[in-house]
Amino acid sequence: MAGGLLDCISDEMDHVDEIIDGICESGTPELTEMCRYVLSNHGKRLRPAMSILFYHALGGDGSDSVASTAAAVEIVHNATLIHDDINDAGELRRGAKALYREYGLSKSIVAGDYLYAMGFRLLGTTSSDIVGYVLDAAVGLAGGEFNQRDYEHNTDVDEAQYIKIIGGKTARLFEASAKCGAYYARPGDIEAIDLAGEFAFLAGHAFQIADDLLDIIGDVKATGKRVGNDIVDGKPTIPVIYAMEDPEYGPRIREIFTSSLTDYKEAEEAISLILKTDSVERCRALATAYADRAKAVISKIPDSVYRETLVNVVDYIVSRDR
Amino acid sequence: MAGGLLDCISDEMDHVDEIIDGICESGTPELTEMCRYVLSNHGKRLRPAMSILFYHALGGDGSDSVASTAAAVEIVHNATLIHDDINDAGELRRGAKALYREYGLSKSIVAGDYLYAMGFRLLGTTSSDIVGYVLDAAVGLAGGEFNQRDYEHNTDVDEAQYIKIIGGKTARLFEASAKCGAYYARPGDIEAIDLAGEFAFLAGHAFQIADDLLDIIGDVKATGKRVGNDIVDGKPTIPVIYAMEDPEYGPRIREIFTSSLTDYKEAEEAISLILKTDSVERCRALATAYADRAKAVISKIPDSVYRETLVNVVDYIVSRDR
Repeated sequence: MAGGLLDCISDEMDHVDEIIDGICESGTPELTEMCRYVLSNHGKRLRPAMSILFYHALGGDGSDSVASTAAAVEIVHNATLIHDDINDAGELRRGAKALYREYGLSKSIVAGDYLYAMGFRLLGTTSSDIVGYVLDAAVGLAGGEFNQRDYEHNTDVDEAQYIKIIGGKTARLFEASAKCGAYYARPGDIEAIDLAGEFAFLAGHAFQIADDLLDIIGDVKATGKRVGNDIVDGKPTIPVIYAMEDPEYGPRIREIFTSSLTDYKEAEEAISLILKTDSVERCRALATAYADRAKAVISKIPDSVYRETLVNVVDYIVSRDR
Repeated sequence: MAGGLLDCISDEMDHVDEIIDGICESGTPELTEMCRYVLSNHGKRLRPAMSILFYHALGGDGSDSVASTAAAVEIVHNATLIHDDINDAGELRRGAKALYREYGLSKSIVAGDYLYAMGFRLLGTTSSDIVGYVLDAAVGLAGGEFNQRDYEHNTDVDEAQYIKIIGGKTARLFEASAKCGAYYARPGDIEAIDLAGEFAFLAGHAFQIADDLLDIIGDVKATGKRVGNDIVDGKPTIPVIYAMEDPEYGPRIREIFTSSLTDYKEAEEAISLILKTDSVERCRALATAYADRAKAVISKIPDSVYRETLVNVVDYIVSRDR
């Protein structure tokens, strides 16, 4: 990743990739192939990056455990994505067919369970605190998914509900990643671990807000996902929530959002209306507000190339087009 | 359970039930309801019983951790059953509709993930060895499921393949349960822990052989499952494997087993043919052989009411009608 965001930890990120590749080697050829299908097609690996950056930003030096833990978090994350795609009937994931569309439902459920277990096994070799952080996130994820489902096609949803949903389904795992890194740098330092967790929890919110905005303004060539997916699914995302408040265009957007029969044509109509409201601007402001809060938290630790990179990661999160 | 199999540990088994009930309380009402739906409709809870019986059989006295761990194993087991039923398109589980048939696919996948995570969290509060035992079983389970799928409707399957499949998908979790109990009684005693694991691994084989036989000779009123399910699914079970070897009836049984269009009418035909072969007798002999090997292993530990109950559990496993 020449000249890239994560240059200062590129060796360790390569090591994370190697660990992940080793985990994919299951001894069952098709399962191995499925794990590689999911895990080799990856983005920036922001969650492991959070672990490793916080480890160094808080003075950690040389531990191998942090790379294992970072890999484990990424593995657990991908396990949940496999199940998510089944749940959402998702077609594409990072530009490739979702796993279950390529290998079928039942093998994909098992592959998800396998990666889940392997991720936790990799964590379990380290410390029970670490396992606790990631399990808390996994438990929060289930709660977030249920909350989200309760508000599908449901206009009762508001910003506060949305924040609760994305806290569970996204931000908790970012939080866990950062806490793991902090833990290895300063095992007994609850304050430092909590600070790392708070930073990443806020950054995780910014990440999901930006992600949900990409469902409206993204380009499939960059995101690897078709726009309007969330609208077709009736997912309660913040661009839709804000746009439904618009006095002029809100009523029609509500109509489309509440229908369980919405197709991509209507989703496109909804998007064109959302773009006429102040929703995109408000979403950007909300993402930026979370990013700024994250940066304020991290300003409390000593300056370093790692702290700087964490700030850059947050900026990337809110400005990314994929 | 008056005059029952597990009388000598009935207080601890009640405690296991209480812990499980507490775990079901998720803070998300529908998720809680789903967890209770699955976990309150239970059988003999043989896996937690193995933990607690081994704990006492090896001299453990008074630890509360063993009950938590026993509960955790049962929770992980039930999480895998939720996903199994989806994978097998199962209709009934213990006489009630499978969870996904009652609450839908996507919420059920999430509920499975939630219970999986909660089970491991409950384990994680104890010891990393314990987490390792159960995670090894969870990883083995995925391998077993894949192996099983490779042999669906496939006449290449033989007894050795079958033993490998059920080792992964069933016996490993029995093994983990017993090892957990032994671990709490004698933390550093690898020999005792391995002995417990070996006993339960063998007993787990006997359990699955008996289970697969019930798909042929069971009574839906007792088992809560329709007979012939496995044949309709083309699952490579030992009664079918043995019957396919029969010179007279084997060819027609193979024909039914290999067809992916087999329905319950043909499954009934297959069952009537299987009953004409020596398959049921051979299955019983195989289950008994595993039970006998398990009993030989456990004869090496001092006699006690707990050891005696473990022997009774094995006898129950091979003779049960549900």
